[in-house]
Amino acid sequence: MINRLVIFGLGLMGGSLSLALRETAAVKTVVGCSRSEENLQRAQELGLIDEYSLDPVEAVHGADMIVLCVPLGAMSDLIKQIAPHVSEHAVVTDVGSAKASVINAFESALGEVPKWFVPGHPIAGNEKSGVEAGFADLYKGRKVILTPLQQTDADAIACVDLMWRACGASVESMSVEHHDTVLAATSHLPHMLAFGLVDSLARMGDYDEIFRYAAGGFRDFTRIASSDPVMWRDICLNNRGALLDVMQQYTNDLAEIEQAIADGDGENLLTIFSRAKSARDEFCG
Amino acid sequence: MINRLVIFGLGLMGGSLSLALRETAAVKTVVGCSRSEENLQRAQELGLIDEYSLDPVEAVHGADMIVLCVPLGAMSDLIKQIAPHVSEHAVVTDVGSAKASVINAFESALGEVPKWFVPGHPIAGNEKSGVEAGFADLYKGRKVILTPLQQTDADAIACVDLMWRACGASVESMSVEHHDTVLAATSHLPHMLAFGLVDSLARMGDYDEIFRYAAGGFRDFTRIASSDPVMWRDICLNNRGALLDVMQQYTNDLAEIEQAIADGDGENLLTIFSRAKSARDEFCG
Repeated sequence: MINRLVIFGLGLMGGSLSLALRETAAVKTVVGCSRSEENLQRAQELGLIDEYSLDPVEAVHGADMIVLCVPLGAMSDLIKQIAPHVSEHAVVTDVGSAKASVINAFESALGEVPKWFVPGHPIAGNEKSGVEAGFADLYKGRKVILTPLQQTDADAIACVDLMWRACGASVESMSVEHHDTVLAATSHLPHMLAFGLVDSLARMGDYDEIFRYAAGGFRDFTRIASSDPVMWRDICLNNRGALLDVMQQYTNDLAEIEQAIADGDGENLLTIFSRAKSARDEFCG
Repeated sequence: MINRLVIFGLGLMGGSLSLALRETAAVKTVVGCSRSEENLQRAQELGLIDEYSLDPVEAVHGADMIVLCVPLGAMSDLIKQIAPHVSEHAVVTDVGSAKASVINAFESALGEVPKWFVPGHPIAGNEKSGVEAGFADLYKGRKVILTPLQQTDADAIACVDLMWRACGASVESMSVEHHDTVLAATSHLPHMLAFGLVDSLARMGDYDEIFRYAAGGFRDFTRIASSDPVMWRDICLNNRGALLDVMQQYTNDLAEIEQAIADGDGENLLTIFSRAKSARDEFCG
């Protein structure tokens, strides 16, 4: 049971967390904090939060669980503000899609990563954003990855684990580096490809025409290009190394396909497409 | 009313065409022809066809409508075989995803493109294939693009138009070149990107791991990588010029994103992602 939960950022992730926990009565009071009072008022109307504060330092006062759900680009400033004011008895976690950068922000703020901070990332979301986007089932059946460090307090990890399980998620742990590579490959890279494709088509001359003939596959394929541009700018800037690595690998593979088409090399194309189909059918059945 | 419809190839496209037409009683007899007797027998059991033949020349005898639903790679040989035997009173159309290559096959076979051939392409499909894949609603609400030539007979066009409308599709016309460019951009290119992505990930070391953490967006994004590899090899080889053009454009755009990430250029990333999101929301919203 969480007594006083403070959620920074009440978009899809933060709003859904609150709704999920309130549904199971796993939390007593939910305090919202963001930079927009309008959003906080709307969050209160929507039943996402009990109280709110515009002052991050005031917000963390008396909290036993603090969850950082702001875009990655806002994490560093927020952490600098609140870190010195977090009580020894509180637990802090986050939902950032890249973990090294959030951990570095704590290190910069305090000189070391505090034992009460449990880096986390729920593998959930959709292309929606904003205070209206949250829903109680977002985390149901999803995975949450924690990337605790050596100094991370075992009780803090247990609290975060319990919170996500109360939302219907399963919880796993891995190293920071591994998380950032896996996510670069399965999430960040696909978003780059989808943004790139739609932008590429949008820049072609007669693009009204082009989109008009797009079929179902195209809609599915480009759905993630409707995601929040600010969030994705921040993810790119906060997972640069791992993302550039997988982009390089991808670009090489795509060049191989391009070369095979140019050469009329049907055998190689068939090999590549068959390997991809097998992998996709095996893992996404 | 079609008296004797001959469908070459009874996969998703051919099977669905037959089911749709039989549902509306727009056809009297459906004759199937393919290279696999096993498939033809199964098609008969499934109610896709009334009769079948393994001999393409025999199959076209007495037909008033002939629809070529074989993979693009099999079109040329098939056309060479049947073209000299098509009656003046018959209409021939196809469902190939690239139009210039099918037209060229008729030109090679007969020295000119016959007036009874109406090049066509229904913008419909999914990642399924094979004789079990067909369903009557595949074409409902979808667009069919016809790319008739100057010599194409107006009555032949009207027959093909009527056939597709009976399946619930709407019918539009455009030039061969325009069709092949638009389809390269909205269909062929996305398939290359999806095949490329899944293959790229499948070639990474710990790919079991990587796919395990793929979320919903990844599933949608890579669904088209489950498409039939042979069909897609054939499309690549039959729409090389247009596909290489859009791949080149895309590769340049992706390189711009990669450079912006490498430079930490958040402003440019935000511009690109916002432009993509607006275009996607506007056209697929």
